[in-house]
Amino acid sequence: MSSTRHYLRYFSADSAQRDMAYQLYQQVADLPLICPHGHVDPRLFANPDYQFGSPAELLLIPDHYIFRMLYSQGIRMEDLAVPRQDGSAVETDHRRAWQLFANNFYLFQGTPTGIWLTDELVDVFGVTDKLNAENAQTIYDQIDEQLKSAEFQPRNLYDRFNIEVLCTTDAATDTLTHHQAIRDSGWHGRILPTFRPDAVVNLHTENWRNQITTLSHVSGINVVDYASFIQAIEQRRAFFKEMGAKATDHAALTAFTTHLTDQQADIIFQRALRGETTDIDAAQFTGHMLIELARMSVDDGLVMQLHVGSYRNHNKHIFYRFGRDMGADIPIASEFTQGLQPLLNQFGNNLDFSLILFNLDETTYARELAPLAGHYPAVKLGPPWWFHDSLNGMRRYFDQVIETAGIYNTAGFNDDTRAYPSIPARHDVWRRAACDWVAGLIVRHIVDEVDGSVMVKALAYDLAKMAYKL
Amino acid sequence: MSSTRHYLRYFSADSAQRDMAYQLYQQVADLPLICPHGHVDPRLFANPDYQFGSPAELLLIPDHYIFRMLYSQGIRMEDLAVPRQDGSAVETDHRRAWQLFANNFYLFQGTPTGIWLTDELVDVFGVTDKLNAENAQTIYDQIDEQLKSAEFQPRNLYDRFNIEVLCTTDAATDTLTHHQAIRDSGWHGRILPTFRPDAVVNLHTENWRNQITTLSHVSGINVVDYASFIQAIEQRRAFFKEMGAKATDHAALTAFTTHLTDQQADIIFQRALRGETTDIDAAQFTGHMLIELARMSVDDGLVMQLHVGSYRNHNKHIFYRFGRDMGADIPIASEFTQGLQPLLNQFGNNLDFSLILFNLDETTYARELAPLAGHYPAVKLGPPWWFHDSLNGMRRYFDQVIETAGIYNTAGFNDDTRAYPSIPARHDVWRRAACDWVAGLIVRHIVDEVDGSVMVKALAYDLAKMAYKL
Amino acid sequence: MSSTRHYLRYFSADSAQRDMAYQLYQQVADLPLICPHGHVDPRLFANPDYQFGSPAELLLIPDHYIFRMLYSQGIRMEDLAVPRQDGSAVETDHRRAWQLFANNFYLFQGTPTGIWLTDELVDVFGVTDKLNAENAQTIYDQIDEQLKSAEFQPRNLYDRFNIEVLCTTDAATDTLTHHQAIRDSGWHGRILPTFRPDAVVNLHTENWRNQITTLSHVSGINVVDYASFIQAIEQRRAFFKEMGAKATDHAALTAFTTHLTDQQADIIFQRALRGETTDIDAAQFTGHMLIELARMSVDDGLVMQLHVGSYRNHNKHIFYRFGRDMGADIPIASEFTQGLQPLLNQFGNNLDFSLILFNLDETTYARELAPLAGHYPAVKLGPPWWFHDSLNGMRRYFDQVIETAGIYNTAGFNDDTRAYPSIPARHDVWRRAACDWVAGLIVRHIVDEVDGSVMVKALAYDLAKMAYKL
Repeated sequence: MSSTRHYLRYFSADSAQRDMAYQLYQQVADLPLICPHGHVDPRLFANPDYQFGSPAELLLIPDHYIFRMLYSQGIRMEDLAVPRQDGSAVETDHRRAWQLFANNFYLFQGTPTGIWLTDELVDVFGVTDKLNAENAQTIYDQIDEQLKSAEFQPRNLYDRFNIEVLCTTDAATDTLTHHQAIRDSGWHGRILPTFRPDAVVNLHTENWRNQITTLSHVSGINVVDYASFIQAIEQRRAFFKEMGAKATDHAALTAFTTHLTDQQADIIFQRALRGETTDIDAAQFTGHMLIELARMSVDDGLVMQLHVGSYRNHNKHIFYRFGRDMGADIPIASEFTQGLQPLLNQFGNNLDFSLILFNLDETTYARELAPLAGHYPAVKLGPPWWFHDSLNGMRRYFDQVIETAGIYNTAGFNDDTRAYPSIPARHDVWRRAACDWVAGLIVRHIVDEVDGSVMVKALAYDLAKMAYKL
Repeated sequence: MSSTRHYLRYFSADSAQRDMAYQLYQQVADLPLICPHGHVDPRLFANPDYQFGSPAELLLIPDHYIFRMLYSQGIRMEDLAVPRQDGSAVETDHRRAWQLFANNFYLFQGTPTGIWLTDELVDVFGVTDKLNAENAQTIYDQIDEQLKSAEFQPRNLYDRFNIEVLCTTDAATDTLTHHQAIRDSGWHGRILPTFRPDAVVNLHTENWRNQITTLSHVSGINVVDYASFIQAIEQRRAFFKEMGAKATDHAALTAFTTHLTDQQADIIFQRALRGETTDIDAAQFTGHMLIELARMSVDDGLVMQLHVGSYRNHNKHIFYRFGRDMGADIPIASEFTQGLQPLLNQFGNNLDFSLILFNLDETTYARELAPLAGHYPAVKLGPPWWFHDSLNGMRRYFDQVIETAGIYNTAGFNDDTRAYPSIPARHDVWRRAACDWVAGLIVRHIVDEVDGSVMVKALAYDLAKMAYKL
Repeated sequence: MSSTRHYLRYFSADSAQRDMAYQLYQQVADLPLICPHGHVDPRLFANPDYQFGSPAELLLIPDHYIFRMLYSQGIRMEDLAVPRQDGSAVETDHRRAWQLFANNFYLFQGTPTGIWLTDELVDVFGVTDKLNAENAQTIYDQIDEQLKSAEFQPRNLYDRFNIEVLCTTDAATDTLTHHQAIRDSGWHGRILPTFRPDAVVNLHTENWRNQITTLSHVSGINVVDYASFIQAIEQRRAFFKEMGAKATDHAALTAFTTHLTDQQADIIFQRALRGETTDIDAAQFTGHMLIELARMSVDDGLVMQLHVGSYRNHNKHIFYRFGRDMGADIPIASEFTQGLQPLLNQFGNNLDFSLILFNLDETTYARELAPLAGHYPAVKLGPPWWFHDSLNGMRRYFDQVIETAGIYNTAGFNDDTRAYPSIPARHDVWRRAACDWVAGLIVRHIVDEVDGSVMVKALAYDLAKMAYKL
């Protein structure tokens, strides 16, 4: 990562394309940020005086993109101050953890994590030196001091980042107290919840029955069978919608969908209540619920997001010690054409329904996803997800999706991050990648400059806003 | 799409590569068009005075590439004047349908459909303005007027397009009356039939038994069992060959092949005659017949084409209302290495046999197809098919196929279209893409200019002619 | 292939990237060659006066990359002097075989085989004319004469090629007599064995029981059950390690791993001894042994290589006539995420274990392999293998692997060849490709020049040396 960033960074090496890209980029660089999907904690905005902790607490300890790579090179997560589930001792000196990170920052050469962090250090914290073993503590001081200032409180960064709207991701059982506090505070920022019922829909969730108990509690509906389960889900959706939600989000290992009768669904549900869930039960129930959740989206107008293909908690050693979301989720191959057919044949032609698909298997872009999005009115494609939220990932996405789906069957960009200060960098990478791709179309005379300008604005701003009805 | 097209269009942004590409392109741009596989209706040439209908009838209503995209954005196919199967009312004013298309032409930005249509409007109809809501009716008039002139009769376009030979695709039960009429007319154009027996080979064809009845009728062989079925197929192949056919064509969901005994095949065939076909029956029978059809190709010398991986009629809503080929076919992942092994172990080493493979799963290019084509004497690879018949699709094909297969194990280009006036544009895109790819090899000193010239001529003309024995 | 090679060959067309690539290339072009995995016969070095045979014996007859392509175009392998297993007559005049090859050398346009051979002819043999029908015999003479000189003895080429270390691949039952002879000779060259027990681990090996008999013989352990089998394997590993081995190598059709109890393993092993192996037995046993071999690597520190996804001997016609490794191995799709989980959950977090993965299904690069390597301390990715050991294959590898895994979770390059004189050309292609890729990062301001220099040196030299503990 270069320590001083060039204004033409990330654009094509070719001078004609690069110049065109920059011309387009200037048209979109300052547009407000639409953040329709992500994992920022609403707590940051509930308290007007919220302060971030140490540089390590902000940038290192919670970021599995970063400690994943360090762990892969034999660095213990305990030494990075990542907390153990059992409360065992881990490094408590954040400066030492930061030093270890800085010593190994070279590992991120050529990675999106390296790009985001460098951009963030420069643009958010004014740190222009490349992080290394020697300057680690000086840079720590620089960041630490700023984090204590009012300028770095989340609400002030919201304005500085030029965010127009930011959606969080919230469990079905969440009471949205932080969202309520934000509303009550009268602050002008627009922070919206998103309904994510995975923990109650996936029968294999750890302590699933406790989740159901909580669901009963927060919904006021005693969940004792499939029918009352559906009622409780609908109650929560109505509540989320009332609280401003525009969308739901669902994660599934595969895109398999299937229609069960209510009776079949109830038999599985009862087995689950008795703690007798089989793997087939869980797969069938998720496959059925995806259709049922689509039905609800048709009814209440919430946009349905589906994230497919992440094999969670692959490394049991890490899972038992550190829990979920610890950099040990590994993608698997996905299938959409046959898997989604039951759902799409029921609701895919419905103009009131919108299904945004995310996936970690790029082979499906040109083969399945673009053809589905380029045909079914309900289907849109989300931006490249997770491991593919990168310069190469975006280039492959544009190259493989757009010829068949066009840009208007995509949902623009979302940052999908819990790392709040990295949001501008992530949108900037997307905008630069989009401008470079459109510039390539222009210099090769595939589109003209007039259309190109419309396209980059759509990709940078309009498409996300339209897709999520924001 | 730019309204005035640049002579360097579609070439690489890099000026050295682009200049080299154009130099190569000038060597092949005017070569005659070899069209060994496509879906143009032979009726167009049977009647010397054939006239196309309205602009919408020519360019919009029959083109599922176009209405697929419009449908994906919520536009009803009825409003585009696409006929319903049940005869329900659809838009009858072609000007209104055209207007709706023009209003939404921006959806095709960056798509091959947009490129073909723009090239076609400019080169075939002299329309240089970019189609939009304002000029829709004026452009309609421009096209409409020309379509009424003798210059736009298909036979005259054949000469204008510089077509050397054009193969149609015809059902096994087709009596080839239009082909006979073309022959009888003494016209110099070379229009050849291709034998495609899918409707009788695939036991899941709608009204399969009626197909068999027709087969009996046209072949003069009473098809009552597997043996007489094979005889009838052979009779039709002999007839097609007599009528000038050089090739057969076969579509299958997968590349699975398997050898059944005659007795096993007959048991399945008898079940099919009784209307008791199972999914396994259909898959087994197709897998067996592919080997049997290969055997016939060894005998009669007809080149065997195999198109794999399209899940047909995915959207039942559309299928019931509008029928087949309505933009709702979605690809699935394919497997060739193990699937084709039984067929290839029987006939793959036979120098009298030629099998041209087409597929919609690009992951098989470098992994399976190029290694198979780069080893078995019988195997050749067809050009990028359908969704991949595009600038990016071609670049990926060249990049992933040629290093392992070389260009001489490919079958050059075919346009595979039913949209007759788009043929020159489709070949031109291929020729430009091929020249740009070879130019990349030259400027990177991977091949020299002498070899490069030979390669682009092969890709533009020779390979298709050789592969199909034309 | 151009006959005189340009010093900027294989770099990007873009002049800025190309110049940067060349600047980087000059930093690594003359580094010694690290050859940690390959198939050069140790016999070449055991005898100080070893002489190669004819040009055809050196360059054509043993090289399945070459005769595979010629065979695909209908040229009989017998006519290329490739020996039949049954001793049937084949061409004995090597000049005629060479002529046939030269006549068809154009088939290799744009292929890595063409590149290697051209580079090799120029750099090793000083042949600057492009091989063709006319100059075939003159070039044959040129090569033939040189092969008879001392300069072309393998030990002298070792120095000329600037090889630092070269690892061979040797069966578990090999007594390593050639390696012992090399040691005894006091020669300074570093030729190390690699332990590859596939023939005894894969229960489907032809004459597997004979292999076990030989294993008993060479290990001095009477292999009568699973326990003694494991003991014998361990004995051989200890012997190989004593003889300088740094690594083991294992080929498997899939990456499936599973843990059997000793009793389960023994039941399968006993069935195998009785000649009653089923397909499931063989798959289970290999899956189990991979974990067991990983356990041994943890114990003895030998680096474990795993090559996955080649369907061997696809063409039975060729297999029966010519045997193994005859250009008829075809890749299949691979799965790592779920397949390797049992092995990785047992040993993937162990810092004493190193597992280098090779594979022929590029779709796993970004989807599975890079995420696994970017998380598990034990996992590293080998360079693009076999069909993907090419300019495009390397570019795809860099583009799809590094953003998620970084370069430090890769194992640099290995040439994996039995064609000794092609080794410098293969490393040179990798070094050029690596420099071009890093140059692309620099000119797009993703990394700076300082980091870029470190990266190219790592890719060209350090990473292979570190990964194999050389």
